[in-house]
Amino acid sequence: MAVYTEVSNEELNALLANYDIGQALSCKGIAEGVENSNYLLHTEAGQYILTLYEKRVSADDLPFFLSLMKHLSDGGIDCPVPIHGRDGTALHQIAGRSAAIVTFLEGVCVNRPKKEHCATVGESVARMHIAGQGFLGRRPNTLGLTGWYSLFEQCASRADQVKSGLQETISKELHYLEVNWPKDLYQGVIHADLFPDNVFFIQDRLSGLIDFYFACNDMLAYDLAICINAWCFEPRGEFNATKARALTRAYMSVNKLPDEDVAALPVLCRGAALRFLLTRLFDWLNAVDGAMVKQKDPLEYADRLRFHQSAVSAESYGLE
Amino acid sequence: MAVYTEVSNEELNALLANYDIGQALSCKGIAEGVENSNYLLHTEAGQYILTLYEKRVSADDLPFFLSLMKHLSDGGIDCPVPIHGRDGTALHQIAGRSAAIVTFLEGVCVNRPKKEHCATVGESVARMHIAGQGFLGRRPNTLGLTGWYSLFEQCASRADQVKSGLQETISKELHYLEVNWPKDLYQGVIHADLFPDNVFFIQDRLSGLIDFYFACNDMLAYDLAICINAWCFEPRGEFNATKARALTRAYMSVNKLPDEDVAALPVLCRGAALRFLLTRLFDWLNAVDGAMVKQKDPLEYADRLRFHQSAVSAESYGLE
Repeated sequence: MAVYTEVSNEELNALLANYDIGQALSCKGIAEGVENSNYLLHTEAGQYILTLYEKRVSADDLPFFLSLMKHLSDGGIDCPVPIHGRDGTALHQIAGRSAAIVTFLEGVCVNRPKKEHCATVGESVARMHIAGQGFLGRRPNTLGLTGWYSLFEQCASRADQVKSGLQETISKELHYLEVNWPKDLYQGVIHADLFPDNVFFIQDRLSGLIDFYFACNDMLAYDLAICINAWCFEPRGEFNATKARALTRAYMSVNKLPDEDVAALPVLCRGAALRFLLTRLFDWLNAVDGAMVKQKDPLEYADRLRFHQSAVSAESYGLE
Repeated sequence: MAVYTEVSNEELNALLANYDIGQALSCKGIAEGVENSNYLLHTEAGQYILTLYEKRVSADDLPFFLSLMKHLSDGGIDCPVPIHGRDGTALHQIAGRSAAIVTFLEGVCVNRPKKEHCATVGESVARMHIAGQGFLGRRPNTLGLTGWYSLFEQCASRADQVKSGLQETISKELHYLEVNWPKDLYQGVIHADLFPDNVFFIQDRLSGLIDFYFACNDMLAYDLAICINAWCFEPRGEFNATKARALTRAYMSVNKLPDEDVAALPVLCRGAALRFLLTRLFDWLNAVDGAMVKQKDPLEYADRLRFHQSAVSAESYGLE
């Protein structure tokens, strides 16, 4: 949960003076996202989300994220759309932060996704990948192999405080991925963080994708691997092959990936598990007393990694 | 800020099955209130606030608070109105907590009230006091003189950790108030916590009063004294006599209190300052690491207390 920066009434009025969406009727800090401060803003023109970008999001990347949302929305994807101010730009300043106002999406997250939700997500990611074609923005994946090494350097000496042997597990896995990480697969714009809390449903209909602040250019199949990690494990860590099959097959029915991309799923899933293991481990070891963020357990991803290490082929994930 | 208890999609659907307000379209935890968990809930029927009552609110008091809001709303006061379920009750259970759904009020809080806001608040409190007449619910003020002694007992030995001499200041003040606290003033239902974050405005029009979870039966002039403490001091602690005059005179223009009630304002303001000094001191000394509540400085109220100690008559507050 978030809301790091408080916004005064005066600051809000000054911000809204840049827009054509009327006066504020209400503005509530919401417990959503962990990287930024988010407000549910109601103005005379409708409902919006006001996001203040905190330090973990690089200011240079903001135009990429905002123009991507616009591009995807224009391409038929239900996602927040940045509102442009009278100066024609979507980025403004408030309370010493860069900020954007985006359209509000109805919907609630599913805490315990069913296989039908997984199928809908697979289909939706595929549609998003297709809609992302032709987007001219470029942003490398800062949480790729190089980023993992950098995170590991900052965590290695204390990793065994979390679990004995964790340092060696990560070190070996990094070495394996360094050697086996695929290079020539289909590339495109990926969401890179499509967890259940970033997908809204109304009843069982998917109503929107949010939080594009990890989006980047990378392998499309890697985005699918992230979704497998995010959607197909049960609360106690068991892998649900039925959900994975529903997710991957729905994806392929909309955006059929080549055989070699499919064959790479086990190693891509290992990379995705390691990515979340490392960021969670970093956050765990660097937790700030009193920070208003609920800590996520890094070891959940050590378990998921172990599962993927034992996967022989894409058949484990429902594909052949 | 709050949101202590997370609500799953399944729990929310189960709760809403008790009501006639349709399905959830969105539900966001909001950073509002410090005692309870609050969600901004949008259903097919409109916007609501879903409140989960955490342990600091006594379950036995909930019917008092909820029926008071209903009574005041029926009397023309803009405040949240509890929604009744199909079983005719406003209180239900979710995630192991008692919970209520109330109507959503538009408006934003003013962080730096102007004297016009203070006048509007004075008038509104007076109207609320009048509307509260005839309300049959009874709840003693648990944060009156007896409650202050009890808080002091739990803080006294550590008070000087916050500021040298604080224990003696409080001890002497308690003794003074014990002797001088008025008894025969006008009684009624008071809000008892009407700070700027509990009052909404749209532009400069007051659009609603919220958070009735300290409401109780007590002296009406004591509620006015709380408002003076809450609205008439500047960020650096200076007393703004112009704002106080605007607030108290607007109150009196709507609900004229007898001379002896007015004459008691200095001692009532001292009591109000001590009440917030003590609760803030208690929270300060008992802060929990990682709690998602922003600590408020108890010493602000030691300063306000000092101001009131030097007030000779109600003239200090703009009344004669």
